[in-house]
Amino acid sequence: MQMTEGQPAGRPSPGPSIGVVQVGLGHIGRAIVRRLAVLDGVHVVAAVDPAPELQGRDAGEVAGTHPLGVKVVPELRQEDARGASVALHSTLSHLEQVLPQLVGLVESGLHVVSTCEELAWPWFHHPEAARALDRAARHAGVTVLGTGVNPGFVMDLLPLLLTGVCTRVDRVVARRVVDASRRREPLQRKIGSGTSPEEFRRLVREGRMGHVGLPESVALVAAGLGWRLDRIEQQVEPIVADEPIVTEHVHVQPGQVQGLFQTAAGYQDGRERVRLELWMALRPQHLAPSPVESASFDEVRVEGEPPVHVVIPEGISGDTATVAAVTNAIPAVMEAPPGLLSVRDLPPVRWWGGRLVVA
Amino acid sequence: MQMTEGQPAGRPSPGPSIGVVQVGLGHIGRAIVRRLAVLDGVHVVAAVDPAPELQGRDAGEVAGTHPLGVKVVPELRQEDARGASVALHSTLSHLEQVLPQLVGLVESGLHVVSTCEELAWPWFHHPEAARALDRAARHAGVTVLGTGVNPGFVMDLLPLLLTGVCTRVDRVVARRVVDASRRREPLQRKIGSGTSPEEFRRLVREGRMGHVGLPESVALVAAGLGWRLDRIEQQVEPIVADEPIVTEHVHVQPGQVQGLFQTAAGYQDGRERVRLELWMALRPQHLAPSPVESASFDEVRVEGEPPVHVVIPEGISGDTATVAAVTNAIPAVMEAPPGLLSVRDLPPVRWWGGRLVVA
Repeated sequence: MQMTEGQPAGRPSPGPSIGVVQVGLGHIGRAIVRRLAVLDGVHVVAAVDPAPELQGRDAGEVAGTHPLGVKVVPELRQEDARGASVALHSTLSHLEQVLPQLVGLVESGLHVVSTCEELAWPWFHHPEAARALDRAARHAGVTVLGTGVNPGFVMDLLPLLLTGVCTRVDRVVARRVVDASRRREPLQRKIGSGTSPEEFRRLVREGRMGHVGLPESVALVAAGLGWRLDRIEQQVEPIVADEPIVTEHVHVQPGQVQGLFQTAAGYQDGRERVRLELWMALRPQHLAPSPVESASFDEVRVEGEPPVHVVIPEGISGDTATVAAVTNAIPAVMEAPPGLLSVRDLPPVRWWGGRLVVA
Repeated sequence: MQMTEGQPAGRPSPGPSIGVVQVGLGHIGRAIVRRLAVLDGVHVVAAVDPAPELQGRDAGEVAGTHPLGVKVVPELRQEDARGASVALHSTLSHLEQVLPQLVGLVESGLHVVSTCEELAWPWFHHPEAARALDRAARHAGVTVLGTGVNPGFVMDLLPLLLTGVCTRVDRVVARRVVDASRRREPLQRKIGSGTSPEEFRRLVREGRMGHVGLPESVALVAAGLGWRLDRIEQQVEPIVADEPIVTEHVHVQPGQVQGLFQTAAGYQDGRERVRLELWMALRPQHLAPSPVESASFDEVRVEGEPPVHVVIPEGISGDTATVAAVTNAIPAVMEAPPGLLSVRDLPPVRWWGGRLVVA
């Protein structure tokens, strides 16, 4: 059997190579630059980060790859974006913090893919910011998408897709268990490892503890299913160690925090319809009910007809997968209609090798 | 937190209720009618099947639900389709067999969702039929989609979606193991249970044995990843029983066929890039390598960075899930651009409750 010309080629080419602006050169931003540096048919046009120690340095060198001939700038001026089509944005988690950045990128005529967790589904919690951004994007004729692994994939897009083979859906449940003991230090700190339960609870009250994005995933799933939720409730609790835990980065004594247990639930007419559970801890084995032997795993249950149960042993690992989700979305935002969209609205983002095929 | 008006409502309403034509009243077609009969905001406009014993009978009664006031007709005349927007089509597996039916539906101005396996990705093996159907659909301003569970979901759409979190994909492997011993008799017969290996191989040579659609799934995955395949190879082998197997429907002696083992593989530059395995047998335990205890399961592996391994204990059961995939696609085809599309091209089809939300 031969491949024929009859096959739809797919994507229109906007030219020989796609210019990309990277905004944010933290851990994820640098990993994005490393992928962009090796993607065929893509070139980095500008790299933006306000950190004083990065100014004027080559973005490739900062990212730990070959020089790209692009100097880091503290903010994007119109002329820096010349030749660029897409901005990849990985700075902060809260929409209010990044809204001016996003509007600026949109007004520079750039499509935007962002890891900002609250952007994954901003219409429930931040409807005014969502409307403003949508308006700006339509006016500029560009597309804005919030994505990543969580939110953006494991606890929203994947569950939604699984409901597609159900004739009835009573409730959607997703559980993500992450063994933080082999992850980088900031993640171990972020989940409160080694602090006291009191300190943990204080940080929760101040909005400084807990993963951002779970309620957004709840809202995304509900909206995808046409469910109008009464409310979304979130809880963040410390998991307290009952024996010492020692990792490369932290020492946890019994009575100190080992990690976090976070839930978000969406209710329709008082009934729980979406429930998401996140366990992020050092050595989470035997904490969460587990269908597999691996310490980390993801699990989705669609309660309905037929019931669908999906298990991802080892889980979908955070950082590389986030880099993939963002960079693989480049062709999707270039082809989508203008405006602020969500992963619900786009054809499934899949691995992308970096070339747009000429139709 | 209150749901606000800022949330995008989603789908434009085409009117108070969507008229649907059901074409094909076999096992799946009847189950589709049963779901349509209880879906809010949908009504059955016509039901088509050439079987003499069904003519003039009420479609609801034939399907085993309440009367629908719609008499079964042998073929669709223009006036039968009045008030209908969508045709659901479940007749035969091969595209050549159904092409005239599909063109007729399209020319009646109907969007079409079909379970025809070869329609899930017809561009590789049937490019001329695909082009003709695409032309007819564009001319009529309607959308045509082939979908189902396999092809259409487990071995193509789900694997494609999973690659979205990978920065590198070396190979995509999916395995579907179906314990046929508790499935309906036609399925047990279809996989050769109780025949001799010689008879099985004769039926394979005549193209009368084996699941239809595996090579289409291979082509769909490859096209989604932008891989141009050199060739797709398919094999269908009997699984021979070494002890007696007795089910409600068949008695298998040692030396007779217990089921089938089918593979389809896609090669790019001589290298295997997509591999699909289907094991459908009475009591398939211990035949296929299994990550779970259940006799039936589905499994997808994306070999790459990060590797992604997904397991679906019990598997996604065939018939109800197929009915869901087809009926849940109704809003998707109504909103999609005209032409022949695949599940790769549409936002993820998810559970649908039957109402189109007014924007």
